Amino acid sequence: MGALHAGHCSLVQKSLERDDATIVSIFVNPSQFAPTEDFDVYPRTFDSDLEILDSLESRSEQAHDWKKVAAVFAPKVSEMYPNGIPLDVSKQVGAFVSVQGLGDKLEGATRPQFFRGVATVVTKLLNVCSPTSAYFGQKDIQQTVVVKRLVQDLLINTEIVVVPTVREQSGLALSSRNSYLANDVKNDSAVISQSLQKAEIAYYEQKTRDASEIRQIVLDKLLPYTNGDLAAYRLDYISVNHPQTLEQLNEVVPGVGAVLSIAIYVPNAGGSETRLIDNVVLK
Amino acid sequence: MGALHAGHCSLVQKSLERDDATIVSIFVNPSQFAPTEDFDVYPRTFDSDLEILDSLESRSEQAHDWKKVAAVFAPKVSEMYPNGIPLDVSKQVGAFVSVQGLGDKLEGATRPQFFRGVATVVTKLLNVCSPTSAYFGQKDIQQTVVVKRLVQDLLINTEIVVVPTVREQSGLALSSRNSYLANDVKNDSAVISQSLQKAEIAYYEQKTRDASEIRQIVLDKLLPYTNGDLAAYRLDYISVNHPQTLEQLNEVVPGVGAVLSIAIYVPNAGGSETRLIDNVVLK
Repeated sequence: MGALHAGHCSLVQKSLERDDATIVSIFVNPSQFAPTEDFDVYPRTFDSDLEILDSLESRSEQAHDWKKVAAVFAPKVSEMYPNGIPLDVSKQVGAFVSVQGLGDKLEGATRPQFFRGVATVVTKLLNVCSPTSAYFGQKDIQQTVVVKRLVQDLLINTEIVVVPTVREQSGLALSSRNSYLANDVKNDSAVISQSLQKAEIAYYEQKTRDASEIRQIVLDKLLPYTNGDLAAYRLDYISVNHPQTLEQLNEVVPGVGAVLSIAIYVPNAGGSETRLIDNVVLK
Repeated sequence: MGALHAGHCSLVQKSLERDDATIVSIFVNPSQFAPTEDFDVYPRTFDSDLEILDSLESRSEQAHDWKKVAAVFAPKVSEMYPNGIPLDVSKQVGAFVSVQGLGDKLEGATRPQFFRGVATVVTKLLNVCSPTSAYFGQKDIQQTVVVKRLVQDLLINTEIVVVPTVREQSGLALSSRNSYLANDVKNDSAVISQSLQKAEIAYYEQKTRDASEIRQIVLDKLLPYTNGDLAAYRLDYISVNHPQTLEQLNEVVPGVGAVLSIAIYVPNAGGSETRLIDNVVLK
């Protein structure tokens, strides 16, 4: 969706390393925003995006062969939605892709129709480019599960590659929406990844496999920010889910593993709230 | 869906004439049947289908170049639905394509989820083959509208070609489900196409453009079979709709045109009912 940061760049870099030609799509997709969400103000920084992409390169085995981004695909809304796309879901007409049983959980519970929008636009992008591989960041982990499933189910001949989340030095997961945050909140928000990491360590040190205990570790770490008179963070969910089916788990079975994920509203610079997400994968 | 008849052959013939290579898919698609419908008993005649396809050929400009079907694609259910597909919609998990605003009318009103099943399997088939053109029969006219829209919306690079309905000498539209009918009912069912034709003639003779009058002409012609003590036909709908949006029309505007369509249950040889559909396009 543009507003490129180092997280996006790591996807591009991965493709430059692995593939013959790399195409970057930049498209702020209206169908994954609710009418109440930030479609209109979502950061759009196309010119600097192009500069950033132009700076990326990967050297192959042969020193004379530096690879760069081959093309940027930045369609108009009317090209991606030839029959129009009102933000109001009840007015939307035409073809949509939904991934039942995966798109209605977690992020989908808080943001109904979100993954229908994601699945639909990803299907369109893959149909337009027919890439051998497509790269998605682990930060939006449910998106990676939904996209892997849609590619499998709709028989699309593209490998979905998941690239680790890129973080600030503080640990805060990079997100275009971080630009909404004042510096102090941005610093404080490092507690989100720290809370996940604490639970992750407890799991790998075999202190617990119990999902509610794992969630409690995260919750405790966040407590100063979510509870009490000065607390300004508002928790949406902390959840432990099966890595493929996204079913909620009571216990994490090593070898099967789990996704431990969080969504939380933090105060933003404009006086309202910004919703941040993060996750760790337990193996 | 196999059980090939002259209607299917006209699609193949059209492709043989127009295209370099013709692939025929044969797949009885479970996701477009409701649990109460005839998925299990739907006619499957694979060996004779292959013989029929082998008999088709088209001579190109050069007399030495006879074209025949290049391949038959007859996947297993588990290949088209790698994660399984229960007939019970509430148990279905995974990626589905729906065409909102087009799939819920007419056939979709009587058969909920029908066009979700059609749109999903057509998307899969087009993704697997990436054909330049795909051929559909006018008999299933709503299907052609839904498929045209999904190809446009999902940016699939395939031209959808609609081929006229092939009919028995009596006028009855060919359908694999006609095999469910006893001979006398099959003969009587010619009244379906005759009723549409009567309305069509009235329209082109400029006797009426009014949708309810057009429907009444069809209804009157069917009356001996739908009303009275010995009447055994049960009407589902007679409808006049916009050719692209499928909105119900009050008046047919020449130049815009309309689809006049019918669905009707007729008694079948097994003592229950078979649902037949037919349509004419008014220009």
